[in-house]
This record gives sequence, C-alpha cells and structure tokens, in this order.
Amino acid sequence: MSIAVCLVSGGLDSCVSAAVAVSRGKVPAFLHVGYGQLTQEREEQAFEAIADFYEVQRRLCVSATYLEQIGGSALTDRAIPLPEGELDRPGIPLSYVPFRNANLLAIATSWAEVLEARQIYIGAVEEDSSGYPDCRGPFFEAFSEMIREGTKPETELSIETPLLDLRKKDIVLKGIELGAPLHLTWSCYQGTQVACGRCDSCRLRLRGFAEAGVIDPIPYETRPEGGCD
Amino acid sequence: MSIAVCLVSGGLDSCVSAAVAVSRGKVPAFLHVGYGQLTQEREEQAFEAIADFYEVQRRLCVSATYLEQIGGSALTDRAIPLPEGELDRPGIPLSYVPFRNANLLAIATSWAEVLEARQIYIGAVEEDSSGYPDCRGPFFEAFSEMIREGTKPETELSIETPLLDLRKKDIVLKGIELGAPLHLTWSCYQGTQVACGRCDSCRLRLRGFAEAGVIDPIPYETRPEGGCD
Repeated sequence: MSIAVCLVSGGLDSCVSAAVAVSRGKVPAFLHVGYGQLTQEREEQAFEAIADFYEVQRRLCVSATYLEQIGGSALTDRAIPLPEGELDRPGIPLSYVPFRNANLLAIATSWAEVLEARQIYIGAVEEDSSGYPDCRGPFFEAFSEMIREGTKPETELSIETPLLDLRKKDIVLKGIELGAPLHLTWSCYQGTQVACGRCDSCRLRLRGFAEAGVIDPIPYETRPEGGCD
Repeated sequence: MSIAVCLVSGGLDSCVSAAVAVSRGKVPAFLHVGYGQLTQEREEQAFEAIADFYEVQRRLCVSATYLEQIGGSALTDRAIPLPEGELDRPGIPLSYVPFRNANLLAIATSWAEVLEARQIYIGAVEEDSSGYPDCRGPFFEAFSEMIREGTKPETELSIETPLLDLRKKDIVLKGIELGAPLHLTWSCYQGTQVACGRCDSCRLRLRGFAEAGVIDPIPYETRPEGGCD
C-alpha cells in the first residue's frame, strides 16, 4: 500500500481526482493550499469534509499567500474584477494565477519526499480548464522530469493527472461511478456559503452536470443555464 | 534594461549572485523567502540591508512556512539536531530541506511573470553545497524547461546560476571584485545576532575566506579554523 499525496482544493475536480487515487488502492494524504483566493475559508471547509468522508489520517493545510502578494490574477487580486462570461473567449483568462500549479506541486513534492509517497494526484483538466499554461500535459511531464533531477536518489515519485483529458461532463460521471462525495465540494469563485451560479467556475460546473444529465447536489443562488434543476 | 528577480536569502552566495545581476546591468527585484528556518529574522535583516545597499525598489518578502510544517530537515525541524562537522561526510546532509529550491524558484517564477522579468538569479553552488539534489545543473535545466511549458507564451524567463561551478573561495573573490556588501551578509544556521562560527555553514564560509586570503568582515563567537583573523 503506497501513499499518494492528493492535492485537494475542495472543488469538484480535485475530489474526483482523489477518488481515483482511493479507487486504485492508494493511502491518500490530503494537501490543501490556501493562497488568498476569495473563497479560501469555504474551500478549506470542503477540504475537511471530503477528508472526513475518506477517513484520511494524513492531512496538511498550508498557506501560500505569497500568491496573493504577487497578484496578477482576478482570483487573488481584488483590483482585477472577477470574470463572468469568459468561458468561450480564447486566450488565458483573468483568473489565471501565475504558475500556480508549479507552486502547488512543489509543495506537494516536498511533503511527498518526507512521507516517502510514490504519487502526487492533481485534478488538473486540460480541455475544460480554459487555457491555463500550467494545466497541460507537457507541463506535467516537465515537472516530473524536474522532480527526478531535484529530489533524493531514493525518491520515486510520479505526478498523476487522471482527469487531464476528460471533459467536465465525464468528470461528473466518473465521480458518481466512484461514489465521490460531490455534495461536499465547492467550486464557486466568489460565494461564501452558497455558490453564486454566475462565475465562470459555477457555469462550467453546472454545464458539466447538465451535459451528464445529473442534478448538481449543491445549492446555488441562481442557476443561469437552467435545465438542470 | 530588463528586470531580474534575485533570490536573496541574505547569505554570502545570494549576495554575490545579486551583485552579478547588477554588474550585468539588470534592474534587480529582490525576493526573500522565509520558511521557518531558525535564523529567519536575522536573514530578513540581512536581506533588507543588502537591498538598501543596492537601492532596490522592488522587494518582496514572503513566507513559505509550510516547509517548516512539512519538516524533514534540521534547518526547520527542531526535532532534528543541527549538524556540525558534516562538511566532509558524503551523502545528503541533514540540513537538506526537501525540494526547497524548487519551491523558491516556483515563487520567483510567479513574481517574474507578473513583473515581466527576463531572468531569475539564484546563488546555488553545486560543488561546495554538499550534495543537495536541487543544487545541481541538471535540476536547473529541468526547471527552465518546466517554466517554458508552464507559463504564458509571451513569458521569456531564464534561470541564472552564476555561482554554480564556483568554490566558496572564488565566490568570496568574485564578491570583492564586484564590490558586493559582504559585511552585510548572514550565513550562520543557528546564531541570532552574532554568527556561531561552529555550524557547517559558518565553517564553509570561514574556510572560503581563509582560502581566499581575506578576513571575513562579520563578527563570530568563535573562529574554529583559525588563521583568518
């Protein structure tokens, strides 16, 4: 039984990614990274709830608020308005946090090296996640190579991206197939206790559930795309 | 005039590395990362003093204390005794902070992307720095490749390691040649206001000055290797 560090933001994708690790018989170690995003507290609550669901013993909740100090993203910089309706626009969205996934994976790798874990699971999605450069296959391959060069010789660690080529619809279906606690997840970029239903993350999620023909189990202020509840 | 993010711990190597960036006509942006190391406060003081010396406008002091939460190193984990006399022992020393440089460079890259900087300077030293896996040339090459894959298409960023192949003696001489403020630097692993002179970092530094035939301008509690003051 090998340990897998699972990056769990508390959102839909990371929950299903962790469910895949569990389904493969790994001992999950859950890592949450807060970085001053608007919904940090609500995400941590979702993280703990999902960790409780899977009875995870090894949990680490850390702060990388320098990403907020650095700014450059609508997710962390209050001077940049949160995008709505950016989903179908080409290019890198305003919500891109510069090099965020590299920072998350570097933290995960440090912890994995101490735990002697063999995998890091990250719920990155290439196609649906709207053009973030650090969400693509070649980035993860380059990161894996960097791990091989930069860790102790006895460290054997792979990055697993089980959702990378899935669409949101398929992630919903995969989550249901694996019995993942989708009702405990949180995806909204701006709500506090109830998801707004309007931000790009809510819209992407609601669209995924609608295409899967499944009712999203969490409450929303509004469900602008209709047809799914 | 292009911006260069300089990772400045406050130690001798990072000071000389920043001096190289300045000598090449870069506009330096100084980044300090505290990670719960025993001497964090003293290092920050050295960082500010060196930044004042170079009249650096863009300064960022951030906290990555998750490295302390993760542990695994004598530098951050009080349960692991600080090494003395490990210098000539083969293998990875107890002061190795797992994957530290990857974490530092990930933070530097995020900031560099926002600043539109063209270089990141890091004072890593391969030969003298005693076998840390994330201090070697192939690691930095792999990191550069990962930057190319994981940042925006318009980001053009290289990692500069001007000291990588130097010995401590040559770093001292390079610092003096460039007029670097070596008297403001701090290298000790365990002191608070006066360097201990006994930890591996002090011994390595004192040995470098001695071999260079130069008196180290900072005070020490003791100078065990003698001959240099």
